[in-house]
Amino acid sequence: MSKVKIGVIGCGSIANSAHIPAYVKNEDAEIKYFCDIKLDRAEKAVKDYNCGTAVEDYHVVINDPEIDAVSVCTPNNMHSIISIDAMRAGKHVLCEKPTARVLSEALEMQKVAHETGKILNIGVVNRFSKSVNMIKDMISNGELGDIYHVYIAFRSQRSIPGLGGAFTTKSIAGGGVLIDWGVHYIDIAMYCLGDPEPRAVSGKAYCALGKDIEGYTYVNMWAGPPVLDGTGVYDVDDFVTALVRTDNTTISMNGAWAQNIGEGESYIDFIGTKAGVRLNYGGYFTKYSTENGALTEMKPQYKAENIFENEINAFVKCVQTGEHIQSYIDSAIITAKLMQAIYDSSDRNEEVKL
Amino acid sequence: MSKVKIGVIGCGSIANSAHIPAYVKNEDAEIKYFCDIKLDRAEKAVKDYNCGTAVEDYHVVINDPEIDAVSVCTPNNMHSIISIDAMRAGKHVLCEKPTARVLSEALEMQKVAHETGKILNIGVVNRFSKSVNMIKDMISNGELGDIYHVYIAFRSQRSIPGLGGAFTTKSIAGGGVLIDWGVHYIDIAMYCLGDPEPRAVSGKAYCALGKDIEGYTYVNMWAGPPVLDGTGVYDVDDFVTALVRTDNTTISMNGAWAQNIGEGESYIDFIGTKAGVRLNYGGYFTKYSTENGALTEMKPQYKAENIFENEINAFVKCVQTGEHIQSYIDSAIITAKLMQAIYDSSDRNEEVKL
Amino acid sequence: MSKVKIGVIGCGSIANSAHIPAYVKNEDAEIKYFCDIKLDRAEKAVKDYNCGTAVEDYHVVINDPEIDAVSVCTPNNMHSIISIDAMRAGKHVLCEKPTARVLSEALEMQKVAHETGKILNIGVVNRFSKSVNMIKDMISNGELGDIYHVYIAFRSQRSIPGLGGAFTTKSIAGGGVLIDWGVHYIDIAMYCLGDPEPRAVSGKAYCALGKDIEGYTYVNMWAGPPVLDGTGVYDVDDFVTALVRTDNTTISMNGAWAQNIGEGESYIDFIGTKAGVRLNYGGYFTKYSTENGALTEMKPQYKAENIFENEINAFVKCVQTGEHIQSYIDSAIITAKLMQAIYDSSDRNEEVKL
Amino acid sequence: MSKVKIGVIGCGSIANSAHIPAYVKNEDAEIKYFCDIKLDRAEKAVKDYNCGTAVEDYHVVINDPEIDAVSVCTPNNMHSIISIDAMRAGKHVLCEKPTARVLSEALEMQKVAHETGKILNIGVVNRFSKSVNMIKDMISNGELGDIYHVYIAFRSQRSIPGLGGAFTTKSIAGGGVLIDWGVHYIDIAMYCLGDPEPRAVSGKAYCALGKDIEGYTYVNMWAGPPVLDGTGVYDVDDFVTALVRTDNTTISMNGAWAQNIGEGESYIDFIGTKAGVRLNYGGYFTKYSTENGALTEMKPQYKAENIFENEINAFVKCVQTGEHIQSYIDSAIITAKLMQAIYDSSDRNEEVKL
Repeated sequence: MSKVKIGVIGCGSIANSAHIPAYVKNEDAEIKYFCDIKLDRAEKAVKDYNCGTAVEDYHVVINDPEIDAVSVCTPNNMHSIISIDAMRAGKHVLCEKPTARVLSEALEMQKVAHETGKILNIGVVNRFSKSVNMIKDMISNGELGDIYHVYIAFRSQRSIPGLGGAFTTKSIAGGGVLIDWGVHYIDIAMYCLGDPEPRAVSGKAYCALGKDIEGYTYVNMWAGPPVLDGTGVYDVDDFVTALVRTDNTTISMNGAWAQNIGEGESYIDFIGTKAGVRLNYGGYFTKYSTENGALTEMKPQYKAENIFENEINAFVKCVQTGEHIQSYIDSAIITAKLMQAIYDSSDRNEEVKL
Repeated sequence: MSKVKIGVIGCGSIANSAHIPAYVKNEDAEIKYFCDIKLDRAEKAVKDYNCGTAVEDYHVVINDPEIDAVSVCTPNNMHSIISIDAMRAGKHVLCEKPTARVLSEALEMQKVAHETGKILNIGVVNRFSKSVNMIKDMISNGELGDIYHVYIAFRSQRSIPGLGGAFTTKSIAGGGVLIDWGVHYIDIAMYCLGDPEPRAVSGKAYCALGKDIEGYTYVNMWAGPPVLDGTGVYDVDDFVTALVRTDNTTISMNGAWAQNIGEGESYIDFIGTKAGVRLNYGGYFTKYSTENGALTEMKPQYKAENIFENEINAFVKCVQTGEHIQSYIDSAIITAKLMQAIYDSSDRNEEVKL
Repeated sequence: MSKVKIGVIGCGSIANSAHIPAYVKNEDAEIKYFCDIKLDRAEKAVKDYNCGTAVEDYHVVINDPEIDAVSVCTPNNMHSIISIDAMRAGKHVLCEKPTARVLSEALEMQKVAHETGKILNIGVVNRFSKSVNMIKDMISNGELGDIYHVYIAFRSQRSIPGLGGAFTTKSIAGGGVLIDWGVHYIDIAMYCLGDPEPRAVSGKAYCALGKDIEGYTYVNMWAGPPVLDGTGVYDVDDFVTALVRTDNTTISMNGAWAQNIGEGESYIDFIGTKAGVRLNYGGYFTKYSTENGALTEMKPQYKAENIFENEINAFVKCVQTGEHIQSYIDSAIITAKLMQAIYDSSDRNEEVKL
Repeated sequence: MSKVKIGVIGCGSIANSAHIPAYVKNEDAEIKYFCDIKLDRAEKAVKDYNCGTAVEDYHVVINDPEIDAVSVCTPNNMHSIISIDAMRAGKHVLCEKPTARVLSEALEMQKVAHETGKILNIGVVNRFSKSVNMIKDMISNGELGDIYHVYIAFRSQRSIPGLGGAFTTKSIAGGGVLIDWGVHYIDIAMYCLGDPEPRAVSGKAYCALGKDIEGYTYVNMWAGPPVLDGTGVYDVDDFVTALVRTDNTTISMNGAWAQNIGEGESYIDFIGTKAGVRLNYGGYFTKYSTENGALTEMKPQYKAENIFENEINAFVKCVQTGEHIQSYIDSAIITAKLMQAIYDSSDRNEEVKL
């Protein structure tokens, strides 16, 4: 089988830390293009990884008949445009999370995936984690009993990324902490629960601490320093709370890119009638159960895995086989729906039924 | 001034651990009656505290013209009946929390308090805590900025009280963890926030782990051993989640008398634009703020106080002066409303507007 | 078999919270005397427990031929005197911990036990805990491999008991946090390790925070309020550190009745080549191990037990059978040796060889 | 002033993550040589940083009359040899920590520094941390009172670096967790305490978990994968305990590169009579004090600093001015003494007097 030819569109941090190294390591894949509207970033990638050609315009990539598939690693506002163009040009797509800025864009992407029959995988990378899949298995085989509630906490005292830049500009990113962090947590919850339909959502998103761009006090800032020259925009949520009803399970959540509480929390609690699990995001889980009249805790920790490699390898295989897997758009769309409903509920200040 | 003559109605654990010792210590008060339908409990109190007369029927107490006031320390189902009878008989009342089993009973109590002009204080004992009042002051003087969200956690792995008994029987208690623990946490939140009107409530209460009375695994049980003779009833909530909207602040909560998660949590986070506070229930608080470009944490711990003595002393003074204070029914009723709305929302499986 | 007749000497808090209720519950035992130099305490016990006779002088108890055994629950300075007198008078003895104020007293007690053939059990109550015995079993069956180090932490920010009173007066108590708390932790370590001989001990004990009796800031105080009338004595250790060498295992420890560090710690780490255990004092343990290439944690929690009842029941049985068990003086003496060596090393400011 | 000409000797991870980027950023410095016995590493540095010349033999560097100073970033076994040669060749030296494998080597380095008058700074990088200097100031101005004890914890469940390689080979590294991690913690303690003379040291170092190179279970491994081809050496300490006596303060410590206890700890407690401080290694500190009868906690967190840049900038300035600062060999030698004494005490199995 000849190698899958890849174009990487967007050569920023997620491309360099995750997608590119994984493709380079994959013997069935070959990167043919690095594409970025900042050409120097594309050129640096060519030099660093010693392969491919640097281009500025993604149309060059998707119009090359040799290309089989693209990774879309741009800011969120380009996810739907590029993914749709690529599929219409006959390419398979791995699009970073979130699927899109708003649900309507995500639905359009799904529609085009169905129409074109191309693979459209979303970067729901936790679906390739061993811990997450162990929890999913425990739930589906009944080991935890009935999961009646899931609590999701993704709260940091100070973690607004690149204050004033693309991450915090609604027209680019679509939202803040919910769409950037919440997307992963919600996706894990939905995946482990078997993707239950949300029936009603009540939520509130606050743009509270970051909007004072000058006065924001922080210790570290990922995705670069704040934009302090007066051009910075901050109009997204840095705190979100929500309560979601599905048929069998309620899900509640609190999330903060920034909050004036010093205790950081990043976990998901799956609370079942027979047992429960706390998953530390990006790490291991503890299972709480009972045995012979005793309460028991069990926590396994295994050798670190690279979930991005798992995700990329699976995508490459999908390109070869046409298979639909757990990161296919039809699975990821439910999180887009749910996040849209939270934002809608926040705007209307009332519960939204789905 | 002659001493305030008190009748203690209900001589169970809250009477013995809190009300009675506080009255005994108060030089302006004198307990004249110990009343309990189990006469031996009343008689034991007479012997232990070396004062008063033991009676079985509370009408004896409220019909004695010498009696100024009563403490109602019975199970929840008698709160409204006895309080109302007592006020109609001309007595001031300190009624233990929750005000009543359901909102309608609480509203009736309030109505009779207004009609009779008698004091009706509710056992919202945390309103007499130094930590809680310090937080209330910080909020009202603007030190925390705008409080946009409050998160309430009262979650224990195993703490169902007297499984199968009065605490877990809905017709007696009115509810489970929400009405027994949640009442205190919600009351603190509302008090500190200045008793804002709840506008909409979405909640879900689960009767999940205690209903298997035989199979329930636990380590300790307060309020006595489980009722294992087949007569035990367990039809109340042992897990509750909710999201509350007020005009300026949302409040979310998760509570568990029992859950298959081993990390216990009992705190309230007041999340403000200038600063935030985490109050450890029954303990001290940490204030998170910023100063000169640094994030700061500050945690003061002062000599232990007896909040029950504060509450009882304040009640005795109210009886003497007729003053309405922070534990008067008009302040406490808001928590009854909110809890009722959570239960209603749970039953209807949708948000309830108020 | 006729009931074992018991005299309880010293009717303070440990007698009332532990010894007396356990004897009362034991069907093979009967308390004949309550003895206290404060006669009213003895009389209160007679009234509360509805049995026995109150006496002031312990010689009355030990000279009564009907008495089989005594519990010595006095301050530490009377442990050796009363225990020795009682054994010489033909009585079996359960003496509260620590064995005595100093090693020489403890050795004299052991000598008399051997001479008279009477039972002399020490209140090493943790030797009757399920958790502790599970750990001892895991160590002796090799499940943890070779235990090369044990770390003991018993550190509190503020817990000096009865500042200025018997607990903090060296001539009465023999020492402070080491002799009062350390004795339990060291005893658990030695018991689980199979009572290895200490070969060398280096330690330092500090009398640092309590000596400013007036200025000592605290939140709660057990064993009563501080003695602030000028007669209070504080000349014992409130901080201790030590390093102990045995043939196969080193033991290090840090203990504080008071310290200007807010993180309280009360645990024992048994660090082995195959696995390790952290025991939370008075609670449960977590076992850390490896399995199939994964690190594992396991924490069982079982129904609460009353270790004092276990201890008292075992003592009553020893009285009936003459058996030497794990709380017999010959086992407990090793902790007395070790604590003496720590104090000696502290005084000499150098390591002490044993 | 012309730029200080630097040679970087050893182009491994500490050079690339710390020294080189700091020199590059410093406008008064210029890297003229990258030297490594693996020439490709030196060549990669030339390419990555776009400056300097790659050489294999450090004599080329130290014999170039243009060179003012060198950074020694090699494995520990070359620290003394290269530093001494460099000073004798007239160069100033910044030598990474630990000073050397054993005390005798460190003393020789100090001697040559004195003889030649060249700067010999050691990589005690924490002496350039804001948190550490704030603590030092609080201690020296009396704010904490008398510091009677310091407890040092550097314990990890699994963190052995490059199992089987240079880090774990005694003839190369000189030791394990004590010399690699302990050196930093001890240095911080000594620095903050004002470098008090150690008078007696009792310690024990264990080579326990890493020696089973094949069977060692881990989750992540820094400094590369284990050497599993049979040539790996593991003969260093992975656990260490010690008790140190100085004139006014005792210091106890427990350290583990690996231990079968899952709770990681990395902090230093400075326990004083007026107040105390817990420093989280590499992070912020909490100060525990008392005020107006209350216990208080205070924790400031300020913008992240780069302590390596501070260290390098200070070194460059020393080269320009000849000044002796807090990282000069005369300050660092005390930690070398102390670590040597711990290893000696471990070998002799008894306390060592200094």
